[in-house]
Amino acid sequence: MSDLTLNGIPVIDTFAEAFDVAGTALIITNDTAKWAMIAATVMTGFATSVIGCGAEAGIDAELSPEETPDGRPGVRVLLFGFEPNGLKDQLLKRVGQCILTCPGTACYAGVEGPTKIKLGGAIRYFGDGFAVAKRLPDATGKSRRYWRIPVMDGEFLCEDFVRAVDGAVGGGNLLFLGRNHAETLKVAEIAVDAARAVPDVILPFPGGIVRSGSKVGARTKGMMASTNDAYCPTLKGRAGSELSAEVGVVLEIVIDGLTSRSVAESMRAGLHAATAAGAAHGLVAVTAGNYGGNLGRHHYHLRDLLEAPASAGNAA
Amino acid sequence: MSDLTLNGIPVIDTFAEAFDVAGTALIITNDTAKWAMIAATVMTGFATSVIGCGAEAGIDAELSPEETPDGRPGVRVLLFGFEPNGLKDQLLKRVGQCILTCPGTACYAGVEGPTKIKLGGAIRYFGDGFAVAKRLPDATGKSRRYWRIPVMDGEFLCEDFVRAVDGAVGGGNLLFLGRNHAETLKVAEIAVDAARAVPDVILPFPGGIVRSGSKVGARTKGMMASTNDAYCPTLKGRAGSELSAEVGVVLEIVIDGLTSRSVAESMRAGLHAATAAGAAHGLVAVTAGNYGGNLGRHHYHLRDLLEAPASAGNAA
Amino acid sequence: MSDLTLNGIPVIDTFAEAFDVAGTALIITNDTAKWAMIAATVMTGFATSVIGCGAEAGIDAELSPEETPDGRPGVRVLLFGFEPNGLKDQLLKRVGQCILTCPGTACYAGVEGPTKIKLGGAIRYFGDGFAVAKRLPDATGKSRRYWRIPVMDGEFLCEDFVRAVDGAVGGGNLLFLGRNHAETLKVAEIAVDAARAVPDVILPFPGGIVRSGSKVGARTKGMMASTNDAYCPTLKGRAGSELSAEVGVVLEIVIDGLTSRSVAESMRAGLHAATAAGAAHGLVAVTAGNYGGNLGRHHYHLRDLLEAPASAGNAA
Amino acid sequence: MSDLTLNGIPVIDTFAEAFDVAGTALIITNDTAKWAMIAATVMTGFATSVIGCGAEAGIDAELSPEETPDGRPGVRVLLFGFEPNGLKDQLLKRVGQCILTCPGTACYAGVEGPTKIKLGGAIRYFGDGFAVAKRLPDATGKSRRYWRIPVMDGEFLCEDFVRAVDGAVGGGNLLFLGRNHAETLKVAEIAVDAARAVPDVILPFPGGIVRSGSKVGARTKGMMASTNDAYCPTLKGRAGSELSAEVGVVLEIVIDGLTSRSVAESMRAGLHAATAAGAAHGLVAVTAGNYGGNLGRHHYHLRDLLEAPASAGNAA
Repeated sequence: MSDLTLNGIPVIDTFAEAFDVAGTALIITNDTAKWAMIAATVMTGFATSVIGCGAEAGIDAELSPEETPDGRPGVRVLLFGFEPNGLKDQLLKRVGQCILTCPGTACYAGVEGPTKIKLGGAIRYFGDGFAVAKRLPDATGKSRRYWRIPVMDGEFLCEDFVRAVDGAVGGGNLLFLGRNHAETLKVAEIAVDAARAVPDVILPFPGGIVRSGSKVGARTKGMMASTNDAYCPTLKGRAGSELSAEVGVVLEIVIDGLTSRSVAESMRAGLHAATAAGAAHGLVAVTAGNYGGNLGRHHYHLRDLLEAPASAGNAA
Repeated sequence: MSDLTLNGIPVIDTFAEAFDVAGTALIITNDTAKWAMIAATVMTGFATSVIGCGAEAGIDAELSPEETPDGRPGVRVLLFGFEPNGLKDQLLKRVGQCILTCPGTACYAGVEGPTKIKLGGAIRYFGDGFAVAKRLPDATGKSRRYWRIPVMDGEFLCEDFVRAVDGAVGGGNLLFLGRNHAETLKVAEIAVDAARAVPDVILPFPGGIVRSGSKVGARTKGMMASTNDAYCPTLKGRAGSELSAEVGVVLEIVIDGLTSRSVAESMRAGLHAATAAGAAHGLVAVTAGNYGGNLGRHHYHLRDLLEAPASAGNAA
Repeated sequence: MSDLTLNGIPVIDTFAEAFDVAGTALIITNDTAKWAMIAATVMTGFATSVIGCGAEAGIDAELSPEETPDGRPGVRVLLFGFEPNGLKDQLLKRVGQCILTCPGTACYAGVEGPTKIKLGGAIRYFGDGFAVAKRLPDATGKSRRYWRIPVMDGEFLCEDFVRAVDGAVGGGNLLFLGRNHAETLKVAEIAVDAARAVPDVILPFPGGIVRSGSKVGARTKGMMASTNDAYCPTLKGRAGSELSAEVGVVLEIVIDGLTSRSVAESMRAGLHAATAAGAAHGLVAVTAGNYGGNLGRHHYHLRDLLEAPASAGNAA
Repeated sequence: MSDLTLNGIPVIDTFAEAFDVAGTALIITNDTAKWAMIAATVMTGFATSVIGCGAEAGIDAELSPEETPDGRPGVRVLLFGFEPNGLKDQLLKRVGQCILTCPGTACYAGVEGPTKIKLGGAIRYFGDGFAVAKRLPDATGKSRRYWRIPVMDGEFLCEDFVRAVDGAVGGGNLLFLGRNHAETLKVAEIAVDAARAVPDVILPFPGGIVRSGSKVGARTKGMMASTNDAYCPTLKGRAGSELSAEVGVVLEIVIDGLTSRSVAESMRAGLHAATAAGAAHGLVAVTAGNYGGNLGRHHYHLRDLLEAPASAGNAA
């Protein structure tokens, strides 16, 4: 398909096709970083795909006390859905089940954006009329409204509403074709670390990696999607395989971001890190997944990502 | 209400009221303990209550290679639902989204029991006709059936079916009434560690602890459940508060188990560990939650748990 | 248990135990009464219990053009959930799937109340920026806000928000103990017709009637609820049966209402109609279902419903 | 795009793009046709799209006593999902909530096929150990297994398992471009009646018709799908509109079928009926919806449907 290379690793001249989605960010704080992370991990669990889980979610960054509204350690999580209503439903369920319940946590809007999603203003009903609103200025002096909802460990402080952004994108991706499992997993882990370091993105699959790529439709049974047999190493002997003899394993990373730019930069970071480590770990090639280009509005051509990323500090 | 004490800490003479539920166990293995734990953590996320999340789930134990069917490191997870059909639905969704997708994982039945739940035999459809069944003897020589489902990193090996047990119980609980947040959290964490060490149980809330206790109904708004104001320290001044002046925080642990015995032993372990550490951390009293006794078939009287637990090795 | 009788039919001296729930009403209009009813029927389908379906819903009344905001024929539907957030989620899904999609329909708030639920203001996102808001006075002169969302048949007109009431009640009920199936079904149908004629209530089960009464818990398997064997005619021989020899069938009606008064009046109407017709149709007795009284805040004692209902015109 | 015509009405030379889905059929019987239809209508409500409702469902046919397994009046319903597991989940929920609950109903497999879906064998758990299995020969002499589950009106008889077919198809469609609403609705209703008369299909939208066509993506907000503005009459003035000046309304019918052949024949029947009635009702043109052809495996070219349908009796 091409003769692109990066760090000596062949890069297929194709593109990742990604979609407009609804996205938001939350800041979860606690007295300790440990408990902020517990709440964030539980809240973003079982959130690898919107169709299967209702949402895609993950941890964007750990925050120091200086970076949070209440001066406590925090975690920023991102949550994505097909559309604002579905996003809201998942947000309320996940905050209600995993943050409201978790000792010591508070919850704040983690991003600006044009679409309000009522959060504390909805969860306050749990307070049975005992919840009270209060207004406080934030670090920029802007007045914000919070709800203090009585719970057994004191009060759950939750911002009245959070914001969905315009322009969130779901489905940026890279596929790593490698020789053996352990080595290719190492390459994918390196790519995940680099891709996650870019602000405003998450990698929703377990550990950031997915191995069960799918195709639309199936050969026989009634399935709208099924295993992407063209990329399954055990099916290499069949007509239609896309894998050369030396490829023994394929791993994918999937990236959702609050902006298209952050998805591109995250893919760029992952591509560069993976190819830089690739020669030492038997990486055969890097490619990306798409649906022919007619479905998703966002096309990330690997060709456009060959230039080195800006330093992490500039990426956002 | 009583003059029970344990380790010098008052124990209210009441009982935890728990329910019959459907429960199963899975063993998740991987090439490394790290990746087995990643898969198990994601799969059991967002699973704090059946009504809000569809399931209650958690990690029962890490398993050494000697303890797993394929000689790899593993994690045993438990999953609970209201009834077998709902349990199956959640099992398939969570394995399909979080285990099938996760590089390197395999999935086995983790408990015997009378009710079959098709697992590999259902997920194999993802394999689009390429999945193949194989039979292998297990460690006891019993023949078991597995599906090998082609994915991009090779094959997802998944046992044909798993088993739901008879006699699973959801909702064992203890309430810790303490003086301040950090100290009472410490007591609750100690209780969680002890309660979790008992086999065949999970504590489904974040970090094992819940702070948002609820009552049935509400004063005004249309809510079937709302904050348990009688146990909210900020509402102590109101008529109906159950909290004495010295109580500044209440934390609860909730326990689900594959057997009633394991729930009782887990409560016993938590009660003893919490009271043993309680004097040093300002613990005021321990109590438990119930609905008057007419709803749940299982009543765990704290009075019956005052005797010391058997050593951990004998608890199951 | 008692010697109450009504119209010569024994009435057990017990009570129906019902719950606080969240409730709202919508008015669905169309160019024709036929299409308003099609939309309302589809939208309120699969809505017999909150736990199993996400909502309880049904048709309260057909409305003449004089009774609707846009002078077209209409149907008033009621929707109930455990709490306002769950109600909103179901409302958006059901309006989005069954009213937005249905040729010619418009959708208006059907009740006043203290809690706003954004409806048109949420569904307008489907309009992709082409939706426009407009304000119009209603019949009382009050200004209301609507969204006009472009669709293929013109515009979907949907009120900006609807209202959840305070004081909705779910689970009013009556049990009819009869001799044979066809005759007891006739009695239950007569009760349904009378109960439905009271404003502000629905009977969410198929045709208003349910035959699968349940008890909390089960004898063996992991089930939080199972068949109410004490009321199963085929299990009359067992210890614990509540049915006398002559009872061959039991049917139940369940009533949800926007107010406690409407539930009581609907039960009253059903009780009187059923007993009035009962002698001719072999009705043995009427009773009601409860959980001992500790769970639901609303207790409707049959003893209090023996006085004749006011004429239908006064019932609300 | 073409100069195809049928019955004097322009037919655009394009195709409907449809998908492999999982599908099954049930037969619901009752003592009366009225109550069989009540159960079937409630069970297939809120089932217009798999993503929004979990399933697409509808009524295929009313059955005479001669056509049902138990010699009672019946209704055949079809249910479709993305894959067999999702289909099973919806089947159990809908039968459990709407058929198990409905007085007098019984439930049987309505189609043969290679994939078993446990139905009675799963719902029997509701029977709390009192359910009993029995084997009976069907009309062809084949032994079938049923569960008799005690309920308050006697027993719910439910076949042990039903069958999912191979080769079900979702998303056949026709778009009718008309001059005014009432007339085009009439055309669409005529098309629905004809399309529904073909065996083995349902039209899942309200009354068989949908007016809220969507496109993939959106201009601004985070939406994976939004109104198909190119087909919205109120947006005709904008660049990109596909509607000529005379088109004032567009209505669509969507068809799901157990076989590709049945979808094609149903589209054919709808196309012929609509065009036959079209001149009298101001029909401007007929077209169909697709995604460019790369997504769905099934392409129904209108060009291939211009030949008259076989008589209804031969269509299956």
